[in-house]
Amino acid sequence: MSADYKIEKIPGGGITSPRGFKAAGVYCGLKKDNGRNKDLAVIFSESPAVAAGTFTRNLFRAAPVEISQNRIGNPIRSVVVNSGNANACVGDAGYRDGEEMAALTAAKLDVPADAVLVASTGVIGQRLPMERIREGIALAVGKLSPAPEGGDDAARAILTTDKAEKKIAYRLQINGKTATIGGMAKGSGMICPDMATMLAFITTDISMPAGLLQKAFRQAVERSFNLVSVDGDTSTNDMALILANGAADITIDREDPEYELFCTVLLQICRELSYLIAADGEGVTKVLALTVKGAASFESARVLARAVLNSLLVKTAFFGEDANWGRILAAMGYAGVSFDPQKTELFIGPIKVADGGRQAEFDEDVLSDYLKEKEISMTIDLHSGPEELRTWGNDLSYGYVKINSCYRS
Amino acid sequence: MSADYKIEKIPGGGITSPRGFKAAGVYCGLKKDNGRNKDLAVIFSESPAVAAGTFTRNLFRAAPVEISQNRIGNPIRSVVVNSGNANACVGDAGYRDGEEMAALTAAKLDVPADAVLVASTGVIGQRLPMERIREGIALAVGKLSPAPEGGDDAARAILTTDKAEKKIAYRLQINGKTATIGGMAKGSGMICPDMATMLAFITTDISMPAGLLQKAFRQAVERSFNLVSVDGDTSTNDMALILANGAADITIDREDPEYELFCTVLLQICRELSYLIAADGEGVTKVLALTVKGAASFESARVLARAVLNSLLVKTAFFGEDANWGRILAAMGYAGVSFDPQKTELFIGPIKVADGGRQAEFDEDVLSDYLKEKEISMTIDLHSGPEELRTWGNDLSYGYVKINSCYRS
Repeated sequence: MSADYKIEKIPGGGITSPRGFKAAGVYCGLKKDNGRNKDLAVIFSESPAVAAGTFTRNLFRAAPVEISQNRIGNPIRSVVVNSGNANACVGDAGYRDGEEMAALTAAKLDVPADAVLVASTGVIGQRLPMERIREGIALAVGKLSPAPEGGDDAARAILTTDKAEKKIAYRLQINGKTATIGGMAKGSGMICPDMATMLAFITTDISMPAGLLQKAFRQAVERSFNLVSVDGDTSTNDMALILANGAADITIDREDPEYELFCTVLLQICRELSYLIAADGEGVTKVLALTVKGAASFESARVLARAVLNSLLVKTAFFGEDANWGRILAAMGYAGVSFDPQKTELFIGPIKVADGGRQAEFDEDVLSDYLKEKEISMTIDLHSGPEELRTWGNDLSYGYVKINSCYRS
Repeated sequence: MSADYKIEKIPGGGITSPRGFKAAGVYCGLKKDNGRNKDLAVIFSESPAVAAGTFTRNLFRAAPVEISQNRIGNPIRSVVVNSGNANACVGDAGYRDGEEMAALTAAKLDVPADAVLVASTGVIGQRLPMERIREGIALAVGKLSPAPEGGDDAARAILTTDKAEKKIAYRLQINGKTATIGGMAKGSGMICPDMATMLAFITTDISMPAGLLQKAFRQAVERSFNLVSVDGDTSTNDMALILANGAADITIDREDPEYELFCTVLLQICRELSYLIAADGEGVTKVLALTVKGAASFESARVLARAVLNSLLVKTAFFGEDANWGRILAAMGYAGVSFDPQKTELFIGPIKVADGGRQAEFDEDVLSDYLKEKEISMTIDLHSGPEELRTWGNDLSYGYVKINSCYRS
């Protein structure tokens, strides 16, 4: 970075940190917990925002995913999000309910109906209780606030069984001008049964054309949310959205150093939210931080990382604090990616445990001590190219089985 | 089948049921259990057998896999198998140890060294204790027997944490002549950490040229062992072998009705062994029998089946006896196979639970009762083509986590 740029994290920041955004989160009876948790959020931009998004590739796509993807090219004023009900697998009624949810929000905000995006997370296969949704929207619009509390409430309202809200914001100074990017997310997988949905919402007051914003966001999502492996399941409702409303006096309209800076900070935000998702899963006792180095391509590194972090044998070994490096090699070997086992090195923390497909010399006691840590790093060096990626997964504990076997009974 | 054919299962049959085969299983100290379990098996054919095999595609292939695959075209007299140590990921020494294991067996049997195949299963990354292997081979060769007990002992000696030996045999009568096919296997996954290896050995006294035997065996393995999903991990040591020694007076040398009959029985044997593998995993409380119907291709059906049976959310839901059909649809949706969600029907047992991507009308109580069964069937009908497959998986319980997290500690 040149001396004209400065990046700083905003303590307690979130989606209302960028200028011109308000948010609220309320309880309207979608979750069966008598108001202990919030379950409906509204994000509002005071001026029309350019939007970009990435959407689940699951063939059974929930209605809100279809609706929001169709509208992503419009000038966007608001996003309405509910938890507790996924509005998925309910047939045509789901589309009508999703569109009504957006229309109700638009009417309360006095903006065009097609300027509202919609997202849902929760139980699959049940109709949305529209009366409660209607009450929730009225309540939330009445509480919209640009203060940090508005963003905090929204971040809480999109959670399902996540333990803590996930939010973050960074401030950028570019040649003396200030722009802000904020974000919030909810976890995927390792959560309640039907609720294994990843949702992420990013706001920024930078001005950027839609095509460039989409490019920046897609790259960031691919290297953050799309790398997080919790249980390998991809939900019917996964969605990540970014809104750029131009309220700051900074326009980025080509791939110049300012664009690179924006991409760097956007990726950082998405990666920090991804880390929070990996760390916050129910039943998780350890976060696994995996680095794949020396890969011939990003895609091969991605596939290898996914195989290792999805392996039940790897996940349970780390839960048991067992130095079972053979399972990591085995998962790499069946990933379906070509690499040279003879060149491959594997580290657990700072300790080289395997080299060229066989055990390296190391002190078992040192490794055993390291495995007691709450965050375990693994590094795979393929020595086959320039690509590198870092991502997170987690262990598999009794808690995961308990949560996911007992949810509806 | 025409009236000239008869097929019957041989009660208690196994790899010594076909003529001209002997077997033995002994304890030689590879497992740390003071001889309660056997850990070394030898299969012997009184005449040179034609062999065929399928081998793990894991890039980290254990030495015995390489050795056996290289020798598969030779006239084969014996297979020596040990459990307790995988002879994997130990570098060049593993090849020397594997070749010595075959050579020791060959010397005791007075057959050429390259007429012996070798297989191993157990802990990864440790050298074979060759002194114990040497003793075990001498002991086993001395005990070789054509009686059912020889096959039983061998079937026990290849197990790791499987609870019961897996063996089977069928007799075929073709135009008044009798041939026999026998088999034994050990489980893959849902077993101890480093021991997630699938091994299968089939013997037959039919005479068949190598190319035709390989074709028949590959087809059978693809529709049986390769469909079984336990935890999605593919081991460094997976191997399935068939030996045809021609001791019966039946030669099959072209794709005629006798060949079809042979293929049918071979597939049946491989499928029954696959079922035993799915049902016998540690921690398994329910077997999941999945049928995919109406698929456009076998490959698409296979990929869908794998996604559903590998889904942790599906596996834990069945453990919890939870009628969570949304998870099954979600797993199908992200499998990466193209199909029409609108045409898709899903049955759990006899009960249609979803149709066209939405919930069907059914009695929740009837479904809840069904989910208490020990064997649960699921049927997915894609209504998109003629292909159908049936395979098995199992649920994910606390027991799986316990076994796989605590093995080495």
